[in-house]
Amino acid sequence: MSPRLRAVAHLRLRLSDDLSIGPGKARLLEAIAETGSIAAAGRRLKMSYKRAWSLVEEMNRAFAEPLVTSARGGSSGGGASLTATGRQVAAGYRRVEERAEAAVAEEISALRSLLAPTGTPQEGSRNEK
Amino acid sequence: MSPRLRAVAHLRLRLSDDLSIGPGKARLLEAIAETGSIAAAGRRLKMSYKRAWSLVEEMNRAFAEPLVTSARGGSSGGGASLTATGRQVAAGYRRVEERAEAAVAEEISALRSLLAPTGTPQEGSRNEK
Repeated sequence: MSPRLRAVAHLRLRLSDDLSIGPGKARLLEAIAETGSIAAAGRRLKMSYKRAWSLVEEMNRAFAEPLVTSARGGSSGGGASLTATGRQVAAGYRRVEERAEAAVAEEISALRSLLAPTGTPQEGSRNEK
Repeated sequence: MSPRLRAVAHLRLRLSDDLSIGPGKARLLEAIAETGSIAAAGRRLKMSYKRAWSLVEEMNRAFAEPLVTSARGGSSGGGASLTATGRQVAAGYRRVEERAEAAVAEEISALRSLLAPTGTPQEGSRNEK
């Protein structure tokens, strides 16, 4: 096992009955900030353009201020960037991940102590059917 | 929004390079404890028998002691139950969830404060294409 393997592998947060944010939306926001483009962010995450737009629209609708502003077409070819709210949400998701990781460390150690030693699979484990 | 909507909607924990435990495996262990049967637990979770067995085998192999013991066939029709380790893992996952939920409460409040008021969707949100 990697010495500092992160325990929180996937965390989806329910912000309201209508909106959850998980690693996919968080990475999309970060990729938009880094690439300046919804299309490029989608490509980086191996997400279709339609899917990337649909997630952006879902988030923009759910918040009081949009998270992503974009100019489609035009001489710039349609850049996109995060608003102040978008940056808050992206950073907030990562802070939540960090807090969750820190909070569960003790319980995770206890669970990991129950694992079989690496490289010595259990005798008699059922592999067939 | 429900007044006490849980924020942690989905939490998958990476215990080792080879084993993660998320809500599916946790619910499967709980359902085996409650129904006394892997098949019945799978049905309750709308999971195929094969899938339920495969998850049980994966967990049994990963831990030093199996989490689930089962007697296939025989007069009892093949009951299954959690071992002491199985109960520790099932309870441990739920404690981790509780700790994560408590740890993120403050950040979640901040993120929720950015949401649009319920029932008043943003003007000009993009719905087409």
